[in-house]
Amino acid sequence: MYPHLKAAELSHALLEKLIRPGQTVIDATAGKGHDTLFLAQQVQKEGKVYAFDVQEEALAYTRQLLAAHGLLEQTELIRDSHVFLRRYVQEPVSAAIYNLGYLPGGDKKIITAADTTLASLRECMELLAPGGVIAVVVYPGHPGGEQEAACVEAYLGNLAAPPWYVFSWKRVNHKVPAPYLLMVEKQNCR
Amino acid sequence: MYPHLKAAELSHALLEKLIRPGQTVIDATAGKGHDTLFLAQQVQKEGKVYAFDVQEEALAYTRQLLAAHGLLEQTELIRDSHVFLRRYVQEPVSAAIYNLGYLPGGDKKIITAADTTLASLRECMELLAPGGVIAVVVYPGHPGGEQEAACVEAYLGNLAAPPWYVFSWKRVNHKVPAPYLLMVEKQNCR
Repeated sequence: MYPHLKAAELSHALLEKLIRPGQTVIDATAGKGHDTLFLAQQVQKEGKVYAFDVQEEALAYTRQLLAAHGLLEQTELIRDSHVFLRRYVQEPVSAAIYNLGYLPGGDKKIITAADTTLASLRECMELLAPGGVIAVVVYPGHPGGEQEAACVEAYLGNLAAPPWYVFSWKRVNHKVPAPYLLMVEKQNCR
Repeated sequence: MYPHLKAAELSHALLEKLIRPGQTVIDATAGKGHDTLFLAQQVQKEGKVYAFDVQEEALAYTRQLLAAHGLLEQTELIRDSHVFLRRYVQEPVSAAIYNLGYLPGGDKKIITAADTTLASLRECMELLAPGGVIAVVVYPGHPGGEQEAACVEAYLGNLAAPPWYVFSWKRVNHKVPAPYLLMVEKQNCR
């Protein structure tokens, strides 16, 4: 399959066109640091990435990856739940990424869950600047994942337009649940 | 709304990464020529675009647009139904675009319909090279559009994987039917 057609890769392709150097962005689920690295590359030295994870293991991966690319400077790694992101971020953010589920290769019992994911999304939407975008990659394949995906989609699917525009990118011809992307845009002021 | 989040624009963003200069591609619904122009820009002078439309008015728009960009040379404009595309195209194609519905600003009674769209898609899939992609933008908003969209999605949703990978891009928080994108990829040989 073309990489660009995968949910996480498509989120990068879309965010790449939106994020500008110097902006503030959030990685709500640092994990192995791939999204954090991508975000740091977009905002560059003059920008700021806040990256959250509850697991020290994840932050260690992320720290190492960012350091290897010389991009640690614009990144703040925070060991806390993304539910509390407004304790750490006060300024408007231009983009955020949620890559739900568990840490790849890590403890599969430590997963994101519908209630905290929704609480965090609400906080993040409060911080989102007009024209800003939140990318949420959901994984309905693991135990609890399907319920989390359904809750997130139901919540986002009921947001009022304007100011919220919500889109989904999904595999259509698939028997087992495949990861998919939800994109939330906050309308720009005109 | 960010233009990149609209169905037709996203199809271009995705195809841009896949189409290479020198390839052969199809615009199954020339319309006002926007997709034909985009395709001609991707395949360049050494490539080939076959553009179909049943309406002379559409081909006139397309011819004018392509000529204005100096890209008529690599484009063959065909006034016939896309059902018969294999009468005109025998070589493998790398990409195709279907932008369904009616000609914007034209006669809204002249619309694509489920049976001919499906017949044409089947022909197009026969021509598609491994690694090739078909983008289908469906419009469920006009009379007949919802039924056509449902038929196309049901057909594509039942294709076997491998070799077919099918994705959808849809507005989630929308009360009235919005245009959406279906992307069909034929797996590359390994």
